[in-house]
Amino acid sequence: MFTPVPVGWIRSPYTETAQIPKGCGVQHVAEGVIEFAAEYEVGLTDIDGFSHLYVIWVFHRANGFDLLGAPPIDTRPHGVFATRSPRRPNPIGLTVVELLGRQGTRLAVRGVDMLDGTPVLDVKPYLSSVSDAKLRRGWLAEVEDRRKTGQCG
Amino acid sequence: MFTPVPVGWIRSPYTETAQIPKGCGVQHVAEGVIEFAAEYEVGLTDIDGFSHLYVIWVFHRANGFDLLGAPPIDTRPHGVFATRSPRRPNPIGLTVVELLGRQGTRLAVRGVDMLDGTPVLDVKPYLSSVSDAKLRRGWLAEVEDRRKTGQCG
Repeated sequence: MFTPVPVGWIRSPYTETAQIPKGCGVQHVAEGVIEFAAEYEVGLTDIDGFSHLYVIWVFHRANGFDLLGAPPIDTRPHGVFATRSPRRPNPIGLTVVELLGRQGTRLAVRGVDMLDGTPVLDVKPYLSSVSDAKLRRGWLAEVEDRRKTGQCG
Repeated sequence: MFTPVPVGWIRSPYTETAQIPKGCGVQHVAEGVIEFAAEYEVGLTDIDGFSHLYVIWVFHRANGFDLLGAPPIDTRPHGVFATRSPRRPNPIGLTVVELLGRQGTRLAVRGVDMLDGTPVLDVKPYLSSVSDAKLRRGWLAEVEDRRKTGQCG
């Protein structure tokens, strides 16, 4: 295996998990910054041309994991690998952000759902999408269907 | 930070990196298996309903990193965070696979581009895509344009 090192940190409007929008049909539009450690700046060469990035980061406040848990959107428990729960065997988060601009080691991005100060492990270019026609979204789609006349209306 | 643990391993047709299709417009259609350690099986509950999954894994044969490198598709160097190079500060790989079926701890998937025996750190449901209309693909799109009459025809 390997020893994870932070290559940067998230600057986000969220300082507590309760502030992060969650649940049914939520859109993450909050703006933030990925601030890279100076030693990695050269690794950002040419990143400016990509509209979207994958950010791989650490749930640094999570402590332990649950194999089954009910996410905020549902009352029924689901397996951790079928959810985005922070309580995972490896506390790794994944977020797709839109790249708004770059100034040196700082990437301005839209779509942060991480806490301020979150350590970043990696950033990768977002290269292609799965078409909506091919996508099935399991229990999440079921919950949305059940709530069509409710809070997701 | 945290100490990474494998939650499973990839079974793939590829035993050497040279066998993995790379470069311009490549489609990853190889089938493989994500074999979870028995202790994590409960964490797969309800995963069957998702058509696509993110797999977060370890480049276990990579040794060290380069902040700048020329990917197989291009002769010009790019920053490591603008490529999928295995030689990254944290040797973490990310692949979107299509879930074909599950038998206990084994997920049959399509789209593997990992070596056989690759340790898996996490699996997450793929919930939404960036629309093609919004996606810009930086240097990769430029290379594809330059090669339109060449090997990417």
